[in-house]
Amino acid sequence: MIASTQRRIKEKRESTMPQTENLRPPKELVDGFVGIGTAIIASMMRSEFNRLRHVAVGVHSLTPGHHVVGTAVTLQFLPRREDLVSGTAEEDTEKRSALWESIMAIQDGDVLVVDARGHMQTGVAGEMLMTGIHARGGRAIIVDGCVRDLAPAREIGLGIFARGATPANAGFFELYPWDHNVPIGCGNVLVLPGDIVVADDDGMVVIPPQIAADLLALCRQKAESEVFEKMMIARTGNVARYHPLHKDAQYEYEEWLAADKPTDPSWRPSPAQE
Amino acid sequence: MIASTQRRIKEKRESTMPQTENLRPPKELVDGFVGIGTAIIASMMRSEFNRLRHVAVGVHSLTPGHHVVGTAVTLQFLPRREDLVSGTAEEDTEKRSALWESIMAIQDGDVLVVDARGHMQTGVAGEMLMTGIHARGGRAIIVDGCVRDLAPAREIGLGIFARGATPANAGFFELYPWDHNVPIGCGNVLVLPGDIVVADDDGMVVIPPQIAADLLALCRQKAESEVFEKMMIARTGNVARYHPLHKDAQYEYEEWLAADKPTDPSWRPSPAQE
Amino acid sequence: MIASTQRRIKEKRESTMPQTENLRPPKELVDGFVGIGTAIIASMMRSEFNRLRHVAVGVHSLTPGHHVVGTAVTLQFLPRREDLVSGTAEEDTEKRSALWESIMAIQDGDVLVVDARGHMQTGVAGEMLMTGIHARGGRAIIVDGCVRDLAPAREIGLGIFARGATPANAGFFELYPWDHNVPIGCGNVLVLPGDIVVADDDGMVVIPPQIAADLLALCRQKAESEVFEKMMIARTGNVARYHPLHKDAQYEYEEWLAADKPTDPSWRPSPAQE
Amino acid sequence: MIASTQRRIKEKRESTMPQTENLRPPKELVDGFVGIGTAIIASMMRSEFNRLRHVAVGVHSLTPGHHVVGTAVTLQFLPRREDLVSGTAEEDTEKRSALWESIMAIQDGDVLVVDARGHMQTGVAGEMLMTGIHARGGRAIIVDGCVRDLAPAREIGLGIFARGATPANAGFFELYPWDHNVPIGCGNVLVLPGDIVVADDDGMVVIPPQIAADLLALCRQKAESEVFEKMMIARTGNVARYHPLHKDAQYEYEEWLAADKPTDPSWRPSPAQE
Amino acid sequence: MIASTQRRIKEKRESTMPQTENLRPPKELVDGFVGIGTAIIASMMRSEFNRLRHVAVGVHSLTPGHHVVGTAVTLQFLPRREDLVSGTAEEDTEKRSALWESIMAIQDGDVLVVDARGHMQTGVAGEMLMTGIHARGGRAIIVDGCVRDLAPAREIGLGIFARGATPANAGFFELYPWDHNVPIGCGNVLVLPGDIVVADDDGMVVIPPQIAADLLALCRQKAESEVFEKMMIARTGNVARYHPLHKDAQYEYEEWLAADKPTDPSWRPSPAQE
Amino acid sequence: MIASTQRRIKEKRESTMPQTENLRPPKELVDGFVGIGTAIIASMMRSEFNRLRHVAVGVHSLTPGHHVVGTAVTLQFLPRREDLVSGTAEEDTEKRSALWESIMAIQDGDVLVVDARGHMQTGVAGEMLMTGIHARGGRAIIVDGCVRDLAPAREIGLGIFARGATPANAGFFELYPWDHNVPIGCGNVLVLPGDIVVADDDGMVVIPPQIAADLLALCRQKAESEVFEKMMIARTGNVARYHPLHKDAQYEYEEWLAADKPTDPSWRPSPAQE
Repeated sequence: MIASTQRRIKEKRESTMPQTENLRPPKELVDGFVGIGTAIIASMMRSEFNRLRHVAVGVHSLTPGHHVVGTAVTLQFLPRREDLVSGTAEEDTEKRSALWESIMAIQDGDVLVVDARGHMQTGVAGEMLMTGIHARGGRAIIVDGCVRDLAPAREIGLGIFARGATPANAGFFELYPWDHNVPIGCGNVLVLPGDIVVADDDGMVVIPPQIAADLLALCRQKAESEVFEKMMIARTGNVARYHPLHKDAQYEYEEWLAADKPTDPSWRPSPAQE
Repeated sequence: MIASTQRRIKEKRESTMPQTENLRPPKELVDGFVGIGTAIIASMMRSEFNRLRHVAVGVHSLTPGHHVVGTAVTLQFLPRREDLVSGTAEEDTEKRSALWESIMAIQDGDVLVVDARGHMQTGVAGEMLMTGIHARGGRAIIVDGCVRDLAPAREIGLGIFARGATPANAGFFELYPWDHNVPIGCGNVLVLPGDIVVADDDGMVVIPPQIAADLLALCRQKAESEVFEKMMIARTGNVARYHPLHKDAQYEYEEWLAADKPTDPSWRPSPAQE
Repeated sequence: MIASTQRRIKEKRESTMPQTENLRPPKELVDGFVGIGTAIIASMMRSEFNRLRHVAVGVHSLTPGHHVVGTAVTLQFLPRREDLVSGTAEEDTEKRSALWESIMAIQDGDVLVVDARGHMQTGVAGEMLMTGIHARGGRAIIVDGCVRDLAPAREIGLGIFARGATPANAGFFELYPWDHNVPIGCGNVLVLPGDIVVADDDGMVVIPPQIAADLLALCRQKAESEVFEKMMIARTGNVARYHPLHKDAQYEYEEWLAADKPTDPSWRPSPAQE
Repeated sequence: MIASTQRRIKEKRESTMPQTENLRPPKELVDGFVGIGTAIIASMMRSEFNRLRHVAVGVHSLTPGHHVVGTAVTLQFLPRREDLVSGTAEEDTEKRSALWESIMAIQDGDVLVVDARGHMQTGVAGEMLMTGIHARGGRAIIVDGCVRDLAPAREIGLGIFARGATPANAGFFELYPWDHNVPIGCGNVLVLPGDIVVADDDGMVVIPPQIAADLLALCRQKAESEVFEKMMIARTGNVARYHPLHKDAQYEYEEWLAADKPTDPSWRPSPAQE
Repeated sequence: MIASTQRRIKEKRESTMPQTENLRPPKELVDGFVGIGTAIIASMMRSEFNRLRHVAVGVHSLTPGHHVVGTAVTLQFLPRREDLVSGTAEEDTEKRSALWESIMAIQDGDVLVVDARGHMQTGVAGEMLMTGIHARGGRAIIVDGCVRDLAPAREIGLGIFARGATPANAGFFELYPWDHNVPIGCGNVLVLPGDIVVADDDGMVVIPPQIAADLLALCRQKAESEVFEKMMIARTGNVARYHPLHKDAQYEYEEWLAADKPTDPSWRPSPAQE
Repeated sequence: MIASTQRRIKEKRESTMPQTENLRPPKELVDGFVGIGTAIIASMMRSEFNRLRHVAVGVHSLTPGHHVVGTAVTLQFLPRREDLVSGTAEEDTEKRSALWESIMAIQDGDVLVVDARGHMQTGVAGEMLMTGIHARGGRAIIVDGCVRDLAPAREIGLGIFARGATPANAGFFELYPWDHNVPIGCGNVLVLPGDIVVADDDGMVVIPPQIAADLLALCRQKAESEVFEKMMIARTGNVARYHPLHKDAQYEYEEWLAADKPTDPSWRPSPAQE
């Protein structure tokens, strides 16, 4: 019943990334992306990695200003069916459900990524469960659906990314937590347990661990050159010359690097020689 | 990694339904629903089985007039990611994917139920694959998403239920066939492999096998009384008296049953005695 | 608690249309629109009656080819709330609800127009109730929402217009029949009890009775000239000359009228004299 | 023309709640919910009151951080029709409309709840009208649709909950204020005049007055135990033990209560004896 | 003001396709696609032409069974603004609008493709204009939006593809015909004047003329092999072996070709030799 | 190929507004609207200028509190097609695209208004390009679609109005920048190059230059009287008397004007004489 697709992925991953007991990529690798915006990551993944599909749609920040990097623990919701879930002792039932299991699986540096099928009446987690994620070292919850207790939850320190908030709790109306650490879709993008996720005010990107090291190097290079580009655009308004850097202005960038990246307004590249 | 929820379902199911080698319910039980409309089934499941959630939304008939009953084989699509699926030899890849596996798993009396996440640019199956389903004894394909080759596919004899049609093939744009015979959502309703599905011009309902026998008895009783109700409403326009049958008109129904269910216009119940 | 808006409408209507006991406009007036397409009515209402908002959106024919004209009986659904509707004896409750009341209010020549708030999981009426509407002389049911039992209902002879079909019955999930013969919205257009409604494969238009006579005269005139226009366009492909009729071609139309509207291909207007 | 449904509701309500002249529940009862989050209320209503449907969808806070409790005054919009509303003296017309009537009906402690049918181009109220609501003692405006003048309106002190903001005013494009203090739908939930509404950053819940006292007691109990649960989860990350409180940890909670609810980190329950 | 993008397209096109006076590709080339389904074209364009984006979304057949091939004449709608379009003599204004111009530009073998921005209340063309398109040799109208007069228009013989039908006419509510034979979007796909369009029950695909000859050859080859594949799947149900054709079954196909493509059930390939 | 519609607009505009070399209206005229809210502008345009359609839908502020006035430079996206845009050197291609051209066309006081067809996966501009707009004197970017780099972009000082944010860059997935300074739709409203746009927390309105002077005078008058209205409503809660100003209260306003618009609470109009 395990499709060959999944076998192939497992094989590919085992052959391309360092094995850790729990499938998590090395923490140094993950934390390399701290401070790198999702927009730079998205640009680099697209131009250098064959248009890899990795940008979530519809999931946005409910804690503006938070930039979050972590390793994915996944949680899958499916439509609820009353013959399978007893209605009499709901919370007790939920407690033994995949929702509680997924939170107990959170380790330091993890992010809980949830496929709630875009449902707007399922508040996947509230203040209690998000406090638990935070206490276990989790950095964010990212939900293709909703959260609840938004006002107190914003005080916890956790990054919260979702489609919105609702007073209704998980399993309340139509969905039920079904399984955890299985492949899911979130914002129309595939997330596997152990993937690296980065989220900020633009949304979420997903990075396969096997390309992370190469990607990180490219992003750092890009981030550095954008410091120069932004400085020069702010002075001149000339996006055609400075973004992306035109070959005629390449020598200016090199002078800037040679001058140890000065940021004071008095610095000037030498005039072009034509 | 298998959630306790799934264990409980398996245990419950094993204890409540006759075991068959392949988890399919007995064919006589399934085929008992032939000729019973989804609307009657939905009414009975709701009023007698604790508001069980079982009616699909958004999936409609592309072969109007087809009434289909069968056992669910399920297929799960997830968002496609290019690091996991090679783009160079696509069809060869797909052939070893869960899509081909799911069709080769079809047996006589089955229905392929597909979770394509409501995507409007993924034509899950075309003329070739639908011919295969039909040749293996499959009765319908039911897709939360799209099919393709609709014009020739309508000639095959298979029931086709979906959100629409598109020229784009499976895995074309954003989704990829991921696994088969796992629990899925289809039209916001949960479908397990081995569930009984009934579909007609109103849409699809899903019947858990363990309630099927009781449900069938109720539906047959309801269908019979509606023959009488409809006849009397057509004559009188009195829905308040005849649907559902008012206790004052109960004796008329009993007379009709006693008269062996006459349908000719000359038959009349005896006048009410007040 | 009755808003002054409603008082003003009532006053305006009483002063502009012939009073009938039950607020229905004269049947001859209503039936004058038989055979006039909704597209012509919409054009005339817009160009001659101050852009009157009257064209429903999203409600389409489930019985293609049916052209229906009638007087509106209205039915209003609102979200269901369990403290107000007992769940134990559902059908009995519904029977005393506004749904049954609205059907018992149907008279010969009426159309039941339903505000089900665009809900896709509420099958407002099924085979039994639609049989009742038909038996009472009703001509159509027009629902901003869904119907059920679509396959057998199509055989009844009633026009059926809705957003779609579902196996779920009225009050099943989220809505409940609340009141009848009150002002409603249907497809984003206001419908008052007693309004004239026309529906065909294009959708529905609503005609205030006080403008019906003037509007009908304009529509008939337009329909007649379009017979000529269509004939000439089919021969020449010249939409710029014949639709709408250019003043240079006005004399041709007059010759055609004078010749008693010939339709055989041999008839020709005299050549233009320039 | 008044449906029996409405009669039954009125009868039920009259028999279960203290009668006030204007149908408003006692203010002490309403204000008991101050400080209780909508998420706790939603949980309690669901688990203890038969899955009562009461959580609004799609209406969110435009004044984040505001927690609002009040008694509902309702306002119903319907699609606008030009034969009923003169276009020549618009504002004068509106002033005598249900919109102005509803605001003049606001009393101290009320909340204006508006059914604008989810329309995104109808700014139901702007700075002037919201100033009026506030001046009359109103606490919030909750709109299934939009408001306008959002920037200055945020300074008034009123809670503002809606789908969004638009420069377009009420009645501008497609809707018109039709009636006030009638039953309405708002965010797919029924609101009756006199219902208790609570709104915060999660959205809105509606509380029928007849269950308010019982519900309040349950919510207070829950809120108290969550203080303990959150403290222990923050220390241990053990959501399985502390939320909801496992029976093995029940004695800890009792010790905490006995110790007068200490919140300093040095307090510890005695170790479990196994 | 003409962007360099457009210059480059023009240059590329001029260098890759045979020049005709009116930018239309040779008719023999266009008509080569008659009888080739959009699903085969979509598959071939994707696998052989670099995932070229060319499949429309949301535009479906209103004349089921019609298979249409033609050359695109395009029409662009934009939001209407009353300062630019006089409201007093609407039809006269429209007649000199881009809508009438686009129809007068139709030649034998053309298809009118319309960007109506997905609007559901703009009936782009009715019976009169569609009669004109047909009389001029046009084969279809394809609208990202709606048409009107659907019932009589279905009798004309024109293929009609759209999102739906409405009684409202072009320019009625919110859009106005702005320009013709400019680049447009239709169903999220770019259409240039002179592109080849194919439409059937699956929807529409757009073929750039410069790849048409190569694409056609591939499609014909594929269509031929699918005759064999379908025959063998219908007999065996073995999609894994026959679609796409497995290399082990390649010899069977060659035998079938050698035998002049027999279709009678008695024909059999020789057994595999293993 | 230029439609007569466009000719007529150009003629009308040339005859009604002062000619500037670059079609921009005089800067004093544009800047007159600084401090006037979009809601007042929308009200005045509707009541005094024949219901002119000018209010954008779905485009909201991502920089709350910003009130922006400027002259429109427009940018049109269309669906991307790979035969027209080389995938190998994307950024180089984009740099010569209409996106770069539009930014280089920005002058002091301009606003870039973008038709990105409502697409949620196209981040039209990021930190670099928005820095360029700001450096050139641009005041805002208004996008019917998304932006990227939202967190750093909020620091630039530019007003940002869009449907949302995404990490994906322009041309990433489905759209491509096609042309600039052509007529576009943005939020379902037409925008011509040179139109005056005003945006704030309510959204965007578009003002045709030829009505700007008259409109401005009306808005200023309205804004002044609303100072009085708001003061009196805040004191009395009487919206029926003070908004819009009832004729019975007209003398109070005149007294207030005569008293030089006092705002201290001790000022009172003289009592009404009845």
